[in-house]
Amino acid sequence: MNKFIPTEKTKVNRLPKRGFYDKDTIYKILDEGIICHVAFTLKDKPFIIPIAYVRTGDSIYIHGAKSNRMMNTITDGNDACITVTLLDGYVLARSIFHHSMNYRSVVVFGKGELVEDREEKITVLRAFSEKIMPGRWDDVRQPNEKELYSTSVLRFHIEEASAKIRTGPVADDKEDYDLNVWAGVLPVKTTFGDPQKDEQLKKDITMPGYLLDFVSSKNK
Amino acid sequence: MNKFIPTEKTKVNRLPKRGFYDKDTIYKILDEGIICHVAFTLKDKPFIIPIAYVRTGDSIYIHGAKSNRMMNTITDGNDACITVTLLDGYVLARSIFHHSMNYRSVVVFGKGELVEDREEKITVLRAFSEKIMPGRWDDVRQPNEKELYSTSVLRFHIEEASAKIRTGPVADDKEDYDLNVWAGVLPVKTTFGDPQKDEQLKKDITMPGYLLDFVSSKNK
Repeated sequence: MNKFIPTEKTKVNRLPKRGFYDKDTIYKILDEGIICHVAFTLKDKPFIIPIAYVRTGDSIYIHGAKSNRMMNTITDGNDACITVTLLDGYVLARSIFHHSMNYRSVVVFGKGELVEDREEKITVLRAFSEKIMPGRWDDVRQPNEKELYSTSVLRFHIEEASAKIRTGPVADDKEDYDLNVWAGVLPVKTTFGDPQKDEQLKKDITMPGYLLDFVSSKNK
Repeated sequence: MNKFIPTEKTKVNRLPKRGFYDKDTIYKILDEGIICHVAFTLKDKPFIIPIAYVRTGDSIYIHGAKSNRMMNTITDGNDACITVTLLDGYVLARSIFHHSMNYRSVVVFGKGELVEDREEKITVLRAFSEKIMPGRWDDVRQPNEKELYSTSVLRFHIEEASAKIRTGPVADDKEDYDLNVWAGVLPVKTTFGDPQKDEQLKKDITMPGYLLDFVSSKNK
């Protein structure tokens, strides 16, 4: 199936033209985001964790220390809501009321399960690393058994999902187009600065090509 | 009081040195963020909304259409958890295990209340606008009564709050410093592109100075 069925939880009711349910749209946003926000309920109260993630197939994975209380709560069969939000621009209208933002966001519902299988764990950690910075995994020291053991990997099968997108120009009231006010869109982007080498870096180690490529491709 | 008391919900248990409870630190992060994530519980299930916000005094405000189902749920005396996350850098260690991110995040707990008073509503909307782009409010058409009426403003008094911060260099295992691997921090920033004027912009309207100042101050 290439589309999620809109449910009571995922259907975009207000401004339905901003709602999308196809996997292509939803997964593209999930693959571009770096940090997701995971909400869950503990003793009837809502909690959120901001955390890095990776999507593979129809699942979202997060990882953290085995001793992390929050991670353990999520795996206790509790429902989770995961959101990824990409801010694309400020929409500067002629009236305050029509000011808006261009954005792409995804909301996902699912339950967290612990990934127990050693090979799957390594596959996910590698996918995670490759998403954050392609080429890095093969360049650095691999995880040893103790490190693998102390890392929990959580899988959220994507049960329900939708995307919400606002794109394009200002939408002012007809009569406001006559106002002497500058209007337009100010793009917002996530960019990367110059890599800062570690003070204890061994001499003669140059910056790897994949890092330079990464920075220049992201800052285009 | 300049400090929040760490509670069961806000205390940073793992890596306690990353936890901060003073208002200066927490409010500085809240004032820098653009989008917050608000979690609440509806029929025992967790939900998240990503939304722009402003902090004034000891409250966080969000606003939206009066007809928005989610906004109405939050004001029904339900508990909410609000998170703001600023990503500052990729920490590229010599081992996969010690890869990390530099970030500043805040978690806030409180209940949403509707702002009913007309003057307070305008004060908040103005503060919201001034936070997003100083100078814009006075330059554009002000809200009329119909627009004010159809906009809900929600106040969350900050009852419990903490910040979690990771900053600084790579922290590798002692024996890994000998590896022939480049290590360091790659800064991540939110930047703004060139303002794109509306296609229907009246002739002879130039870009306002506050907009140019805003872009250049943010992209420093």
